[in-house]
Amino acid sequence: MNDAGSKLSVFSLGGINEIGKNMYVLQYGEDMIVIDCGSSFPDENLLGVDLIIQDISYLLENQDKVRALVVTHGHEDHIGGIPYFLKQLNVPIYATRLTLGLIELKLKEHGLLRDTELNLIHPDEAIELGSIRTSFFRASHSIPDCVGIAFETPEGIVVHTGDFKFDLTPVNEEYADLHKMADIGKKGVLLLLSESTNAERPGFTQSERVVGDNIADAFRKATGKIFISTFASNVHRIQQIIDAAQMTNRHVALLGRSMVNVVSVAEELGYVHLPEGMLIDAQQVNVLEPEKVVIICTGSQGEPMAALSRLSTNTFRQVSVLPGDTVILASSPIPGNEKSVSRIVDNLFQLGATVIYGSGSASGMHVSGHAFQEELKLMLTLMKPTYFIPIHGEYRMLQLHKKLAESVGVDGKNIFILNNGDVVDIQNGVASQTRRVDAGSVFLDGLGIGDVGKVVLRDRKVLAEEGMLIIVISLSKADNRLLSAPDTISRGFVYEREAEDLYKEVNQLVVSTIKEAKPSTRYRRNDLKHAVRKSVEKLLYTRTKRRPMIIPFIIEI
Amino acid sequence: MNDAGSKLSVFSLGGINEIGKNMYVLQYGEDMIVIDCGSSFPDENLLGVDLIIQDISYLLENQDKVRALVVTHGHEDHIGGIPYFLKQLNVPIYATRLTLGLIELKLKEHGLLRDTELNLIHPDEAIELGSIRTSFFRASHSIPDCVGIAFETPEGIVVHTGDFKFDLTPVNEEYADLHKMADIGKKGVLLLLSESTNAERPGFTQSERVVGDNIADAFRKATGKIFISTFASNVHRIQQIIDAAQMTNRHVALLGRSMVNVVSVAEELGYVHLPEGMLIDAQQVNVLEPEKVVIICTGSQGEPMAALSRLSTNTFRQVSVLPGDTVILASSPIPGNEKSVSRIVDNLFQLGATVIYGSGSASGMHVSGHAFQEELKLMLTLMKPTYFIPIHGEYRMLQLHKKLAESVGVDGKNIFILNNGDVVDIQNGVASQTRRVDAGSVFLDGLGIGDVGKVVLRDRKVLAEEGMLIIVISLSKADNRLLSAPDTISRGFVYEREAEDLYKEVNQLVVSTIKEAKPSTRYRRNDLKHAVRKSVEKLLYTRTKRRPMIIPFIIEI
Repeated sequence: MNDAGSKLSVFSLGGINEIGKNMYVLQYGEDMIVIDCGSSFPDENLLGVDLIIQDISYLLENQDKVRALVVTHGHEDHIGGIPYFLKQLNVPIYATRLTLGLIELKLKEHGLLRDTELNLIHPDEAIELGSIRTSFFRASHSIPDCVGIAFETPEGIVVHTGDFKFDLTPVNEEYADLHKMADIGKKGVLLLLSESTNAERPGFTQSERVVGDNIADAFRKATGKIFISTFASNVHRIQQIIDAAQMTNRHVALLGRSMVNVVSVAEELGYVHLPEGMLIDAQQVNVLEPEKVVIICTGSQGEPMAALSRLSTNTFRQVSVLPGDTVILASSPIPGNEKSVSRIVDNLFQLGATVIYGSGSASGMHVSGHAFQEELKLMLTLMKPTYFIPIHGEYRMLQLHKKLAESVGVDGKNIFILNNGDVVDIQNGVASQTRRVDAGSVFLDGLGIGDVGKVVLRDRKVLAEEGMLIIVISLSKADNRLLSAPDTISRGFVYEREAEDLYKEVNQLVVSTIKEAKPSTRYRRNDLKHAVRKSVEKLLYTRTKRRPMIIPFIIEI
Repeated sequence: MNDAGSKLSVFSLGGINEIGKNMYVLQYGEDMIVIDCGSSFPDENLLGVDLIIQDISYLLENQDKVRALVVTHGHEDHIGGIPYFLKQLNVPIYATRLTLGLIELKLKEHGLLRDTELNLIHPDEAIELGSIRTSFFRASHSIPDCVGIAFETPEGIVVHTGDFKFDLTPVNEEYADLHKMADIGKKGVLLLLSESTNAERPGFTQSERVVGDNIADAFRKATGKIFISTFASNVHRIQQIIDAAQMTNRHVALLGRSMVNVVSVAEELGYVHLPEGMLIDAQQVNVLEPEKVVIICTGSQGEPMAALSRLSTNTFRQVSVLPGDTVILASSPIPGNEKSVSRIVDNLFQLGATVIYGSGSASGMHVSGHAFQEELKLMLTLMKPTYFIPIHGEYRMLQLHKKLAESVGVDGKNIFILNNGDVVDIQNGVASQTRRVDAGSVFLDGLGIGDVGKVVLRDRKVLAEEGMLIIVISLSKADNRLLSAPDTISRGFVYEREAEDLYKEVNQLVVSTIKEAKPSTRYRRNDLKHAVRKSVEKLLYTRTKRRPMIIPFIIEI
């Protein structure tokens, strides 16, 4: 069943142990297909980094083989890296309608739209990508138009689930296509890649419809203005908010750039239906009676520059939260965001609003878009794969997903947990994981791609926690004589005005260190800097128990 | 019922909107009593700050009136600030036995034990503090020997609950003294101060005994070594771990300085009972069979230098986590610590351990020590206060606690939500909140008290996120001539080797800026620095979209 010498390979280039910058690559023979191209946001250790994307040097080395980038859905962690990817490697993109709309929005911003080949896929049709027949199945998730992918290779069928849950009462009519999944499983799946985000959570996710019912209840009870914050891309939820607004005769205003953009794309493509005359501008909010208005806004994750955060500190120009207003956080804080979200809730309480919030589904205003354990088992049972790779998640989630797979009958020896760069090869029905390719993270900070590396980040950390001290020393070129007293300034160390005595002491120490240095040391500038740094370091630690970055600076005249 | 002119006042000096540095002050006439003196840990915005304590300048201004520091229990957020307090204001301390033991430990470290007056209080006895008769009632919490306080003043009774929950099946025999609380309530409480930590959580906390049962179950199932991590001060939980170890014939080793210290104090004072020969040193762990060992360790909050974190990265010298071992996190991440705890769990999975973890009480290995909503209502119902101040919590929790109080009959007009520095005065039975005193936070970093202020922290933030660039310019004193080419170095900005061209450009710009500056500007050093900073800032932002801190440095020869 196999071309002589050809083998099937799956590469992880992102998305392992770092939820957010998802990217997998499938190769059969001379054909490579890239699946998803996400970006992720840095955590607090990556000081000042704006965005993290994949290192795609392996793909660049093999660019003649890359046939396509296929995208499962339109979330940032699956499409956010596309502009940076295309700047390095221009390949045709395949995606469903809404996903394509959201990608277009991004390409426009980066001026890449004209030069990119965009192909619309319909979940019911199959396409040929090189030698690989590629078909799709609809999946439920927290954004419409989500698909899983089945790749038919001569070696066998590979299924990539994308992100999914099983919402059996979905808001739109796009049911997760259980029957198609069952058909694929019946044909025989060689390898399944399935997402692991909620592998820690027992049970079955609630339906998005539950949120709609609770939103409607809250709208019925509210008296003043209603603010409701959710992910802009959660189009089903936004539709349910619009429905509740219609039921309670309220107009809708949209706050936040991504909310305006995404809703406009979704409406244009028919994923959101806004009754005629319902939408108003932010400026009109204050003209209407409070009980006639709903404001849908961004910032449900506590992002400091987004609408909700600015509303909570009363720094949004056109609209204010007033006592008697209701604010609904239709979201659950992503790990790491708990404190910023709490701060916003706290500020909203101070403004006198009624705030409906909570983590997980505790408030009734949020359900997860990712399969819980019973759903993961359902997918595994439908697909009955010979080999299994749990994807999208941190190590513990992949490991727990592995256990779930074993519990429904997948042989533990046939389950591979990959790190980024790991490869699984399958030839003649036998899978092995023996090789690695280049893979990693690239940090974006401002305009630069990849110019902020580990050295820069380590420096930022020291600067952040201890501050720094610069000592400028002017030496005569001729005889290494000190031309003037050393000069010391600091930033982020101690408040300068209060530290005059300490700096005097530092300067005296620098003078004596230079005087006492052997002529050979004085001659070698780096040795002299080292000697100054060491002696000042010791003094400062004794006096303050701190270790600022010390930068001796020699001027030669 | 009141001395002519005397009034009763309650001051909040810490603990409002910043869980952790709790401190309240009660004053009647010429007598002031300080209740608790906690410290708190900085969040990610306070770069490099080690500890936060109260600004007690108001107490220093009134030091002749301060009669005592009364401490409700031995947690850091109630005793952590005591050494720094005593260095500024030496007053007698009153606390129960275990609390006093933990305070002594702290005072020893700071060399303050000899000069401090420590007074043991027994919950069943009353004491006179100046004119104020002070009695106590036992409360349940996650540390033994916890008390609430009743202050009898001529104006009426003021009750401060300390931290509490109602554990009706406690691990030791020290029941929360419901009858005494009821008696105090019957006498009539003028003002109640009650903690609000869990005002967001519906229902009633589970008993600590539940944790003991689950620990015993896990110990019965475990085959390899058992590691269990919890707060050192949770003495009841440590006793339950010891009991489970005894039941399964395991020895116990303690890892982590605070674990060793606290257990030793608790054992000495009779709060922990260790069977003869059960305790072993860390070095002995590897000598014994894995199934004969339990390791109790610190670091359940993900603290990077604590035992659990080091075990998870296999950098603990004497002991290793091996495949087949069980690791139990008997704790719930405090908001803000979720990610560090997740990282540790992930690492432990990678080591092949069975990890029992979860947030809240999901794992069965943790229950909260703070009253949930029904318990808060029970306290309010028992005390029936005329006036109420919700304490210990962020604003939203205080506000929710206020609503709970209203729901059990406290008049909303009689409830005060204080910020730090706010004062409630009661005279002739009438309460008002009209004045403020100095209050705030003091940051400790290394040895300094308060020398890291807002300027330093703002600098650290810029340095952390954007890095910095130093430009050294040598000018002749005589004629403001440039003596040599400017020199530029950076830290935390871009990787220097890759930025040579950019720095050349910067240096050229500096030269031209200086040349083009008006003579008057060149003469005034600060103006010249300003001009250089502005022009370089603009260049760097255009080239990199970043705004590092720019420090022009002028050397005069």
